[in-house]
Amino acid sequence: MASYKNVAIVGVGLIGGSVGLALTERGLAQKVTGIGRRMSSLERALTAGAISSATTDLAEGVAQADVIVVASPVDAIADQVCQAVAAAPHAVLVTDAGSTKGEICAAVDERLAGNAHPFVGSHPLAGDHRAGPEFSRADLFEGKTVVVTPTKATSPMALEKAGDFWQSLGAMVHVMSPQEHDEALATTSHLPHLVASAVAKCTPQEYLPLSAAGWADTTRIAAGDAELWTQIFHQNSAAMLPAIDKLLTQLTEMRSQITAGDWARLQETLLEAKRIRDALGN
Amino acid sequence: MASYKNVAIVGVGLIGGSVGLALTERGLAQKVTGIGRRMSSLERALTAGAISSATTDLAEGVAQADVIVVASPVDAIADQVCQAVAAAPHAVLVTDAGSTKGEICAAVDERLAGNAHPFVGSHPLAGDHRAGPEFSRADLFEGKTVVVTPTKATSPMALEKAGDFWQSLGAMVHVMSPQEHDEALATTSHLPHLVASAVAKCTPQEYLPLSAAGWADTTRIAAGDAELWTQIFHQNSAAMLPAIDKLLTQLTEMRSQITAGDWARLQETLLEAKRIRDALGN
Repeated sequence: MASYKNVAIVGVGLIGGSVGLALTERGLAQKVTGIGRRMSSLERALTAGAISSATTDLAEGVAQADVIVVASPVDAIADQVCQAVAAAPHAVLVTDAGSTKGEICAAVDERLAGNAHPFVGSHPLAGDHRAGPEFSRADLFEGKTVVVTPTKATSPMALEKAGDFWQSLGAMVHVMSPQEHDEALATTSHLPHLVASAVAKCTPQEYLPLSAAGWADTTRIAAGDAELWTQIFHQNSAAMLPAIDKLLTQLTEMRSQITAGDWARLQETLLEAKRIRDALGN
Repeated sequence: MASYKNVAIVGVGLIGGSVGLALTERGLAQKVTGIGRRMSSLERALTAGAISSATTDLAEGVAQADVIVVASPVDAIADQVCQAVAAAPHAVLVTDAGSTKGEICAAVDERLAGNAHPFVGSHPLAGDHRAGPEFSRADLFEGKTVVVTPTKATSPMALEKAGDFWQSLGAMVHVMSPQEHDEALATTSHLPHLVASAVAKCTPQEYLPLSAAGWADTTRIAAGDAELWTQIFHQNSAAMLPAIDKLLTQLTEMRSQITAGDWARLQETLLEAKRIRDALGN
């Protein structure tokens, strides 16, 4: 089982906080340092037991770390990864928890070009529409998939350490390229978010008393942070557009089945959708 | 508090079974008769305690009933309501539990024209994507809204009895016209179902291991019964089409914000959606 002297977490929200809690509860780290922009949110993370010490100085916070996890909003990740790599010469692993991978990995590779670097991108497929360290859970990653996305510049050592790290928190590791990740997640995560927001936006507020579990489920993730999701759509726009177009085509096709009164084909469409949904389970 | 000698439930699935369980658990009915097409499913309802007797003969099953609830698939409801009204001369209330109201209420009014009739349409906004009497719950309607949709032909007595009936099961009653109901539900229920199915259908099955709670929530209702939902889309197609068009416009607008790189406007859109979703709560 992996164990760490000093794990630094840059950005201690729900994901970063849950990494800290999981490490602590499993007795995997002697020290968990939280690094953030505001002491107020770091103090909430300390109170929640997610970190054992806190600082707003990134270079100072990572200096002694053997593992660094950057769990900030996606727009901030590449910068902070490069700062962390520079400030922590002995780190065996620098990784992140961003929902997009292509732009982040490309930016890091470009800026650290020529140097062997210990960064490999990660995306834990776990979370909640609530944000903040007070919602952290030690079991957030248990049984969940973490995608790890090496590039040509990733050292084999960092890739191996990243796998060990997430597995030590109970996750299953899935290795793929940043581009494969972004293409799949455009469909499995980013498109559902856009759609949930569109359905909510199309609903007059006075209709809410006439909604039931179906509306509530379908729109739940629209409660997510608008700024964070705008960044995700921005970073992954190249893969989002074909996914949106595929959905628009599908919806237009179902609309045509309704106007044509082709109920047999509409039922077949719903049945195919049900087969895919049933394959996932609850 | 209302109490009934003999409540007949035509179609004992999740909704019909939950009506029976709720009546029994609250001690509101001396007898609950289940009526269905197949004895096998009626036997499951008897085992679940949802009904106290069972028959496949509608006329026989409703003959002694003071209240009749038709909880069949929407395409079957108008017919069965008319049969029940004819066979139960002393019934004070005949109602249903269908997800659409316009076509059902119009068909019943037309066929019973000239006779004072005890039918008023109902739609309990409660349910589950699982079907069958074994999933019945005595508390299914507690705190939930039931829409009751009188027409000009509805007797004031039947409207009052329908309100009493659903309230006695713990529900809140919301009275509106069948057309108002169908227009609102097109947005709050039928559109989310279509969208959930479209997102599921657009997802290659090999991507499922790369999905998380967002995809699972957004597509959950796509697991519903394809035949029942085709009937609902069919019956409510007039109200569905403008709702679909509004969503297509919204999605196309968000797509344009992405291609134009207008992240400020996209964020504002997500924020407006979040405000609507937050107004509902979990």
